[in-house]
Parts: sequence; C-alpha cells; structure tokens
Amino acid sequence: MNLILLFDDDFIAPQQVVLRDRRFQHIKQIHRAAQGDTLGVGQLNGLTGQGKITRLTDQEVELQVTLDKEPPAPLPINLILALPRPQMLKRTLQTIATMGVKTLHLIHSNRVEKSFWQTPQLQEDKVLEELLLGLEQAKDTTLPHIEYHKRFRPFAEDIAPQLAQNSKALVAHPGPYPECPQKQQQPITLAVGPEGGFVDYEIEKFEAAGFEPISLGQRILRVETAIPVLLAKLF
Amino acid sequence: MNLILLFDDDFIAPQQVVLRDRRFQHIKQIHRAAQGDTLGVGQLNGLTGQGKITRLTDQEVELQVTLDKEPPAPLPINLILALPRPQMLKRTLQTIATMGVKTLHLIHSNRVEKSFWQTPQLQEDKVLEELLLGLEQAKDTTLPHIEYHKRFRPFAEDIAPQLAQNSKALVAHPGPYPECPQKQQQPITLAVGPEGGFVDYEIEKFEAAGFEPISLGQRILRVETAIPVLLAKLF
Repeated sequence: MNLILLFDDDFIAPQQVVLRDRRFQHIKQIHRAAQGDTLGVGQLNGLTGQGKITRLTDQEVELQVTLDKEPPAPLPINLILALPRPQMLKRTLQTIATMGVKTLHLIHSNRVEKSFWQTPQLQEDKVLEELLLGLEQAKDTTLPHIEYHKRFRPFAEDIAPQLAQNSKALVAHPGPYPECPQKQQQPITLAVGPEGGFVDYEIEKFEAAGFEPISLGQRILRVETAIPVLLAKLF
Repeated sequence: MNLILLFDDDFIAPQQVVLRDRRFQHIKQIHRAAQGDTLGVGQLNGLTGQGKITRLTDQEVELQVTLDKEPPAPLPINLILALPRPQMLKRTLQTIATMGVKTLHLIHSNRVEKSFWQTPQLQEDKVLEELLLGLEQAKDTTLPHIEYHKRFRPFAEDIAPQLAQNSKALVAHPGPYPECPQKQQQPITLAVGPEGGFVDYEIEKFEAAGFEPISLGQRILRVETAIPVLLAKLF
C-alpha cells in the first residue's frame, strides 16, 4: 500500500478523514506510524497528496489531508481481454490497475470455460478490491472501468468496430505477424486472448472489425505476463 | 504445458521415451490424447521436436520422438534480483524461465526479510519445479542457472563489478533517473530491488560497481510486474 486511498465516506470535514478498516490496520501494523507522521494519500477518482496523523487510537486513525497533486497519467488504451481463470483474473485486475489501464472489456471466447463467468471473483466487491490494491500500488486514484461481454459475436460485430474506429486496434496472437509496435503516441485498442489463444474464427472477426494481428515472438506467455509485456512495449 | 519436457531417464531407446508422472497425467487428461497423436516435446537442455504416441495405457505413455529444432533464443541478460517473498518467488521463477532469462542471481538486500531465505520454496526441487513450468510454457528447454548470495556486500563488491564489466549494467530504482533503454543488442546486467526498493547505500554500491540507475516511471510496480516490463522494454 504505497498510497492510502480515501473514499467520500471517510471525510468528517473537508480536509479530515477517519479510517477504521484495513487501511487503519495497515497504517498501525505495517507503517507502524505514530501521531504526527505523514503518509501518502489520494482520494478515489481525485487528487493525491499527504495525510498527517492527528489522532491514533486502538480503533481508528484520524488524518488531516492535503490533496493537491494529479494522479499519474492513464495509459491511452482500451484493453480487451478474454476472461481469465479466477486466480489469474485476480492478479490481472491488480496489474491492469497498477499499470494505468482505465478501460477493460472482459469478453467471452471459445477457449474461456463457461464456468469462469460464475466465479465469485467477478462479484462487484471482489473486483473493486483487486482494482483498489492495484491503484494503491501505483499511487493512482482513478478507478478503471470494466465492461463485461458474455457473448463473443455481439461484442466482435457491434462493439469491437467502434473501439477500433478511434484508435490503432491490435490483437495479440501467436503466429507470423508483425511484432508489437513500440512507443505509441496514439490511443490503442488491444485484444488479448485466453490461455490457448483465440480461435481462427475469432481472429477473423477481429480483423473484420479493423484489428491488426501482432505477435509477441516465439515464446508463448501466460496472460498475466503477456499483459505487462504488451503494455511495456506499446507505451 | 505447451511442451512436454523430456529427461535423460525417460529414454528407453535413442528416440523412445516412457512417461508415468504428471506429464503422463497431463497428456491423458488435459490433451486427451490418443495413440497416434503428436505432441510438442523437448529434451532438457537440448533440442525440441515432436513426440508421436505409440502406446497409451492407464499407467504410462510411450512416445516416438524426433528432436530436430533449436529451442527459442535466450535473452542476453544476467538478472540480479533481491530475494522476493515466497509466493512471489514461485511466480517469478516461472516468469523468468518463460521469458528466456538464463542466469539469475538471487541476492540479499536490506529490505529482504531474513526469513525469506528459510522458505521451502528455495529447496532445489521446488525451484526446479517452477523453472520447468516456465520452460514448458515458452516451449524452451534450456534450464536457467541460479546463484544465491545471502550477503549483500560481498556480492556488491566482488561479483557485481565482474558482471558489469562485460555488459551494460543497470539497476532499476524509483527516482529521477533515465528511462529504461529499449531494444538493446548488447548483453545486459540488470538489478531489481525488493518490495520497497534498494536502500540508498545499496544503490551507491551498485553505482560503484558500474551500474547505471534507471527508472520505470511514476508508477511503482510489484516485482512480478516490473520484471516482465523491464525485459519487454530492454529486448
């Protein structure tokens, strides 16, 4: 937790918050902070700054906060991702939040097991928890927006072309394709398949929607590795 | 398992192997393979190729193998990594093997908890298991070599300067440093700190050994994300 994220409900006055939950525990046990200490804070979807501990008891901590800095810049990307298996989903949500992705489309695909859509990890509070952990790691405050598309074809035919229209649209796929481009200045839409990759029909659909297949080279990466690799190359 | 890794003990004839362990289970249950099917195989520290199932029983599978292809090229890097916490170590070992790192130095550092050196995850068989999973993922056969340095100073004073001598030596550290360079053709030595980063003294030691600090930008990444990001940028 490199940043303590603050929510509207935490404020008891315009520059004063009281925390009682895991953030309080973290400040007390991990930071081992004391009255007078200053910690990095940020308001969800708002500014970052400093919080000075004005009171610390066994139940709660009170901070006087000054919020005056913009959070780190977002990445100009729409990420489209075939729904990963639950454990990988958890880490992936953290990673995309840490790296600055602000729009994520989780889609169905032939090689996504239908049962993955039933996982408790997709419950709103679970997803939020992972995204917040990711933001705290990067000292970011801007919550990513996630859209869920449980059917591939309507997504590929109706939504993918719109996303491709205002950006450079890429689909990462093993094969004899051009390498992932580097240091892009323009907005990117990037689709990443499930374990085992998209099937041919899906790649054809992405191509029809205006997506250009790109390769990551000979080595096949797990989704949780492919995403940081692709984002690191692109930006 | 994108590749079935074969060991010397598996061979019953020059081009014939019998598998009974998790590889047999995987072939049977995940691949749902049958006699006559062909699977990607590779010999540990050797060539890759194809294995044709010549016999499949409830206990074992026999393959006729043809090994004729070089494994993917290694990354020209010495990676130096402050020992991560056990769970992160597991995933990191897989990741570095998948991405093609062949030399890893795990070092102590001020912010590495001493107890991390006692984890069962550092036992030779556990380390090997994760590295093999990483190789199988990337269809690679060349086992990474790992060295362990439980004291920072002797490593920084005696070994780091040698590593720096024949390569471009970099230490990733948050701060106002140049960005990570891209698309390097020359051999690289790269040091990555623990959660919380190296301490100032350690950065000074790396600099004295010929290492140049580089930054990954404003966002602080977890080690398991920083490594794929750094490797993706460098190569």
